[in-house]
Parts: sequence; C-alpha cells; structure tokens
Amino acid sequence: MENVVRLSPGKRADQNALEVLADLLQTEMLGVNEAILSGMQSHVHLIPELSGHLINSGGKRIRPLLTIASAHLCDYRGGREINLAAAIEFVHTATLLHDDVVDESDLRRGKATANTVWGNQASVLVGDYLFSRSFQMIAQDGSMEVVEVMANTSTALSEGEVLQLSAANNVDTSEETYLKVIDAKTAALFAAATRIGGIVADASDSEKDALESYGRNLGVAFQLVDDALDYSATQATLGKAVGDDFREGKITLPAILAYRRGSEEDRNFWKRTLSDLDQQDDDLEKAIMLMTDQGTLADTIGRAQHYGSVAKDALGIFPDGELRQALVGVVDFCVNRAY
Amino acid sequence: MENVVRLSPGKRADQNALEVLADLLQTEMLGVNEAILSGMQSHVHLIPELSGHLINSGGKRIRPLLTIASAHLCDYRGGREINLAAAIEFVHTATLLHDDVVDESDLRRGKATANTVWGNQASVLVGDYLFSRSFQMIAQDGSMEVVEVMANTSTALSEGEVLQLSAANNVDTSEETYLKVIDAKTAALFAAATRIGGIVADASDSEKDALESYGRNLGVAFQLVDDALDYSATQATLGKAVGDDFREGKITLPAILAYRRGSEEDRNFWKRTLSDLDQQDDDLEKAIMLMTDQGTLADTIGRAQHYGSVAKDALGIFPDGELRQALVGVVDFCVNRAY
Repeated sequence: MENVVRLSPGKRADQNALEVLADLLQTEMLGVNEAILSGMQSHVHLIPELSGHLINSGGKRIRPLLTIASAHLCDYRGGREINLAAAIEFVHTATLLHDDVVDESDLRRGKATANTVWGNQASVLVGDYLFSRSFQMIAQDGSMEVVEVMANTSTALSEGEVLQLSAANNVDTSEETYLKVIDAKTAALFAAATRIGGIVADASDSEKDALESYGRNLGVAFQLVDDALDYSATQATLGKAVGDDFREGKITLPAILAYRRGSEEDRNFWKRTLSDLDQQDDDLEKAIMLMTDQGTLADTIGRAQHYGSVAKDALGIFPDGELRQALVGVVDFCVNRAY
Repeated sequence: MENVVRLSPGKRADQNALEVLADLLQTEMLGVNEAILSGMQSHVHLIPELSGHLINSGGKRIRPLLTIASAHLCDYRGGREINLAAAIEFVHTATLLHDDVVDESDLRRGKATANTVWGNQASVLVGDYLFSRSFQMIAQDGSMEVVEVMANTSTALSEGEVLQLSAANNVDTSEETYLKVIDAKTAALFAAATRIGGIVADASDSEKDALESYGRNLGVAFQLVDDALDYSATQATLGKAVGDDFREGKITLPAILAYRRGSEEDRNFWKRTLSDLDQQDDDLEKAIMLMTDQGTLADTIGRAQHYGSVAKDALGIFPDGELRQALVGVVDFCVNRAY
C-alpha cells in the first residue's frame, strides 16, 4: 500500500479491487501491520529476521483484509478483528514456510525463499513458532468459538497438505480429490478469515454462514486461477518461476483435465513428465501447448468463475454499499487476474 | 505396559517408578491410548500410518501420565484429563517428527525415524497435522485456560527449538543459554502437562503452581540426564545411537562444561569437532574421556539432582499417599536412569 498515493476519498480508476478494499480499510490494515510486527518479535533474533523476510515481501494480505471487511460488513469496528486478522496471516505465513520446505522452492514473491537463505531447519521451526504464536494471539482474544474455528481449519489445512503429498505425481488423480486438496489447503483458511469476522461482530448464524461461503468459494476460485497461472503467466506477474508445478510434478486441474482429455500418446507424455519427473528442455512448452489445444487452462478459469459466482451471491444477504461492492470486486479481480 | 503381568495390587519390587505410576493409572492410560488412536485417524491414510509408526514405538508416555496423575492428586477423576493427556502427547509427537527432520536423525526409540521411511516432507506435514489436531482436542474440551497454557507452551517450545538452532555448533554457548533452551524445548511441555491436570481439577492457584513447578523441574532434570546419557549410555538402553549429539555438533551441558574447564588444546578439540564438525573415528571416544576426566558427565547429573530435588519438594503441599510417592519415584527414576 505504500505506493498508493491517496488523491481523493473513494476509489481511483486505476486501482484494482484489492487496492480499493485496502484503501477502505486503511486504518485497520495499519493496525494489522503493527500487530504482525509486534507479534513476530522474540529475543531469539532468527525469528523476526526470518519471519520478516517473508512477511515484508509484499504479500497481498488478502486474508486479513477479508477478516476486517467481514467484521465491518456486520457493523463491527471494535478492534478485535485487527489482532485476529494478524493471527490468521501468521497461520498463512507458517504454511508458506513449511510449503517451501516441502516443495523445495527457491523463489516466492520474487525473492529467495527463507529455506534457501536460512535452511530447511530454520524454516520448519520458525513456521512452528508462527503457528503457535497465532494460537497465542487467538487465546488472548478470548473467544472459544474462534479457537474452535482456527483449530478445525488448521487441522483441515494440514490434512489437505498431506493429501496433496499422497497424490503427488499421480496423473490419474480425480478432479474430486484435487478439489478436496484445494478446499483444505487454501479455501479453508479463506473461509475461517471471513467467518471469524462474523464471529467477532456477533453476527447471526446465517450471516456467519454467508461470510464463510463467500470466503470458501473465493478461496477455491483463487487457487484454481493460481494453478492456471502457473502454466500461463510470466514470472514477473507471478512472483515465482512459471512452470513450478510442472517441474515438481504437482497435479493440478489443468494437468488433470489434459490427461483425461488426451490421446494415449499425450497420457504417456504426462506420465513421463509428471509421474516419473523425466523432463526435457521443451517439455514445459509442450505441456502448455497441449493444455491450450485442449482448452484445459480456459476451463480451469471457467471452474473458477463458477465458484466466484457462488461467492458473490453469498454476499446477497448483506446491505449493498461500497464494502460489499469491494468484496464482489475482489472475486472478479481474483478470477480475472488470469488474463 | 502389555508386558506387565499384574501379580497383586500395589507395586512389585522389579517395577521402575514409571511402571508403578502407569500401573496406578492403568484404566486412564488405556483411555489415553484409545484417544490417541482415534485422534490420529484420517481419511488421508498417510496420517495414521506415519503417526502410528512413531506413536506405537514404545514411548514412555510420561507426559500423559503426568497430566492424569496431577488431576488425580487434586482429587479429579472426571475424564477430561484423558483427552487432554492425549492432546499433550500429540504435541510431543509433532515436535519429535519435526526434530528428526531438523536433526536429520535416522533412529528413534530403536526404530527408523519417520523421515527416513516416508521422507522429510511427510514428517513436516504430519507433524503440522498432529499439532493442529491437538488444538482441536483442546478446543473440544472447552477450557480457555487450557488453550492459553498450551498456546503459550507451544510458542515457548518452538522458540526454544529456534534458539537451539541458533546456538548450534557454538561451543562458547553459556550454561544459562543452554538452560533456556532445555526449559523451553522440554520442561515447558512437562510443566503444561502437570498444570493442565490441576486446571481440569479446578485446583487452587497454589496447587496449580506447585504442579507446574514439579513438571518444569522434572523436565529440566530429565533433559539434563538425557544429554548426559547421549555420551554415556549404550545404544540398547538409549533406543538411539550413542553420540548423536556429538556427531550433530549439538551443544549440551557435558560439552559446555568440558569446553569451559578444558585446556587450550582441549578447546581446540571441541571447536574442531563440534563447531567445524571435522570429526575422526576416535573423536567420540576422546570426547567421552575428556568429559569423564573433567567430571562433566557426573556434574551434569549433579545439576539434574538439584532440579529433581526442587521438583520433589514442590509436591510437599499435597497429602502423602501412593500417588504422591509414585510421582516422587518418577523423579528418582529419571535422574537415576543415568547409572
């Protein structure tokens, strides 16, 4: 947000929907940043050093934004949403640190990953720390309902990560299994972020359910687009290397559909490259060509549009206004960044 | 416990104190085992498979024993202590999985480590799962005080692990820093295990503080002895390779004291072997000889006896009886297993 010069109140034509939302919630997001900075302090210097590397690397802070927006949509502005938003960002950061160890990634948000700079050991342990710290902040807030949501969410999240590992390199993974994985590893935390906004606002069950549904469907759409972008974006827009999923043999929907729609020869190509990880120089190019020919990238975006529509409709029970419009805009932004 | 044939009520002469305690709490410990088995189930098969490998490998279950004994010592037998004891064992198991990844260990409790069998990735993620699952079980129990204790404990625990990593290979580590590390990475969870027993029993603050003090001091003593055993036990009694700490350059009290008491030549030896990890075949033997000559192994046990005494005295406010005696016996057993 530092680069956004505020010319006048209200949204500017060149702002994307996340920037519009961040602009509406500017004061609270400054509070989130403060809570994040103070939360990651420790007399063990490696902790703020390593956490800060990732936390200051320009993430979109989409989950904290969702928590605060959800609380405000239910007319709550009491301040609890700020610390809880920071706690949710910590869980997200912890999973990124562990993901990068598991995936052996060396680039994240355009910077060297923490595991590359400080080693896998430090990334595992600082991830554990941020995860624990998050529960400490949630305990300090004092709502057992929030504790329950976060404990259920992080259990689902790690279960999804193990499921993804179990399905790794299996080109015959079903779309259903893939959806379970992304529901658990991405959508569950989006859903928790929005539901917790409703909880602190003491919203009705139907409002909390609506917020959760918005978060969950947005999360699925977000991950579907991410998985399509991994084959279609440029490194500059992605902040990580294009084709990472391909090189790791990660089985995502564009590949699942290409395998299912492909000829015998195509299927052998996918088995060789994704299951056996026997890849040559021009294989990524060929993979993208097959996906384009068979329309699997476009259809992955099509699936994302479906979940995006469900997310937008879930907000229908809330009164119209600039906040609800901004949240609708976030869905469109997430789906459309594919182009 | 399956191997213990119960001849008559009360303790048998050949039972060690942990077995005596387990015998007193036999019914509850069967409940803990059931809670552990049901808690680690998941539709993602790798989770029970990998967790079961470690959980069924004959750990002493000392933390669950402490929770149940502490609750009973405060006259509580309502059942909540059983699920919470299982949750605490899950946190312990999660840290073991991550520890073995961080330490690159290949032997634990006499068996191949999970990371050796299933890889680091699976160990990191299943560790995350067990950790989350533990918070889920604690949330189901419903006590915010327990949530707070466990969130604070796991934050301290991971902070201690990072501190240990930061101090790795630094032979000039002070005894104070070493004590901070073992307080955080071992004693904190012992302290939580005993305090939580008091919390479910709705014990007074002074009773909860006494239980916590017992747990914390026992934990420090336990870890001190463990660190001495790493240089003085046989592989059969240790269940892992003797000299693991030496080979990894882990800085524990026997080495810290040997470095501080050593000649210039000795210090160069410790720097070469522990800091630079430049080790030859007979270096472990020489390390043990230096430690024996300078009495650092015996003095490490001496320190353990000190903390053990504090632990035993902490129990003084509770009425005498077989349970309190068994807990006193556990301290003696932990300290004396060094011989």
